[in-house]
Amino acid sequence: GGAVVEDELQLSQLLRDFSAIEGRKVLVHGGGRKATKMAERLGIETLMVNGRRITDSDMLEVVTMVYGGLVNKNLVARLQANGVNAIGLTGADADVIRSHKRPVKVVDGSPVDYGFVGDVDQANGEMLGRLIEAGITPVMAPLTHDGEGHILNTNADTIASETAKALAAIYDVTLIFSFEKKGVLSNPDDDDSVIPVITRTLFNKYKADGTISGGMLPKIENALAAVEAGVSRVIITLATAIDGQHGTVIEGEELRS
Amino acid sequence: GGAVVEDELQLSQLLRDFSAIEGRKVLVHGGGRKATKMAERLGIETLMVNGRRITDSDMLEVVTMVYGGLVNKNLVARLQANGVNAIGLTGADADVIRSHKRPVKVVDGSPVDYGFVGDVDQANGEMLGRLIEAGITPVMAPLTHDGEGHILNTNADTIASETAKALAAIYDVTLIFSFEKKGVLSNPDDDDSVIPVITRTLFNKYKADGTISGGMLPKIENALAAVEAGVSRVIITLATAIDGQHGTVIEGEELRS
Repeated sequence: GGAVVEDELQLSQLLRDFSAIEGRKVLVHGGGRKATKMAERLGIETLMVNGRRITDSDMLEVVTMVYGGLVNKNLVARLQANGVNAIGLTGADADVIRSHKRPVKVVDGSPVDYGFVGDVDQANGEMLGRLIEAGITPVMAPLTHDGEGHILNTNADTIASETAKALAAIYDVTLIFSFEKKGVLSNPDDDDSVIPVITRTLFNKYKADGTISGGMLPKIENALAAVEAGVSRVIITLATAIDGQHGTVIEGEELRS
Repeated sequence: GGAVVEDELQLSQLLRDFSAIEGRKVLVHGGGRKATKMAERLGIETLMVNGRRITDSDMLEVVTMVYGGLVNKNLVARLQANGVNAIGLTGADADVIRSHKRPVKVVDGSPVDYGFVGDVDQANGEMLGRLIEAGITPVMAPLTHDGEGHILNTNADTIASETAKALAAIYDVTLIFSFEKKGVLSNPDDDDSVIPVITRTLFNKYKADGTISGGMLPKIENALAAVEAGVSRVIITLATAIDGQHGTVIEGEELRS
């Protein structure tokens, strides 16, 4: 989650916990707030539509610098210090994620051009698997490429789901979204009201009765889509509780039936 | 060479030529002028001592963004478009180049603190070789890490020599420095007066008689050191003539004797 990268205490805790995870792993990061700050320092205006950044050519330069350089390389260096043999990747590196520029979309009746934003075509699980089998831990920046020489800006949650789905062809994959809450809450005013498990059936029920609403809906839709595409489970949890023992688990129907 | 990255025509020619090179290859890039421009836009002053950048923490942020993000990722995306399966690397990525922070040095009688500048301890030829054998072309940014979580700024020529030396343990390595002249000139006023071959003996002679002087001296010292450390040959040539058929060849004594 983007907020974690900005908070030194949370970040070092997360990196320690991530480093302690046994076995094969991948880290996906954001950096939107740092990009917005850097854009501001450069006198570049940040425009958002429905919570998504409009990426014109100046903003593309900023996110390429901030996500691909500043955030990614510092995370890699810090993981190396923790004994994790990390490698920083955008989608262009080793061609791991291809995308195409998002076409102009009609939002609330008006056309919206998101600019240099990439909708993912394919994550290359085979190449990621080769790196992972060589003892390397990919650290993925939210940038992709179109195969025609252009970097595109892609949402970090999308990078995480697409990577998890591609790796699910080879591995038993758990996708963990680190988050500012302990999990999906049944009562937004009670931080301890974590829903332990969500399946498609339970999601439909919670959605119908209003238990889950707003920004959580697309997040869980995304998680269910990952599970339905072969990811074993998705966990939504605090950035400081990524041990797989906390948070909300989103999983397939058959496991509960 | 740094100037090539700034000139779109030269750069696309270089990328085409580089893409056409058969066999295993590595690209090392700079980006100093872009870093200086970005620093200026951010109101950060660029200080140089003897042609070397002083890298304080603000400047480290700038070079990490510009070299590791902006320049590196755009080169990688463009090489991918040319059919080269490039991967962008700083020294921190897969731990390919470790360095230590340069100690304060006395220059012209005064102590100079270069700041967050890394002097290379070791390039990891084995890891680079594994990537190369997987069909990947490393694209290396002039950044290293100290193994303790810090990115450090390292001269691109040094990255190139250290990488070439490390790979020389596995491969027959030709190191090509792309340059704004056709090669090392015997007459600085005549762009066609390229010295075809330089060995240690010839270098000593040219140095003694003044044929070679100034900024070329450390460049050739560096090239001879690479040759003496196992690199088969170093070529200093125009950025638009990297086919191995042009420029000045720096090679070992035994080949000429």
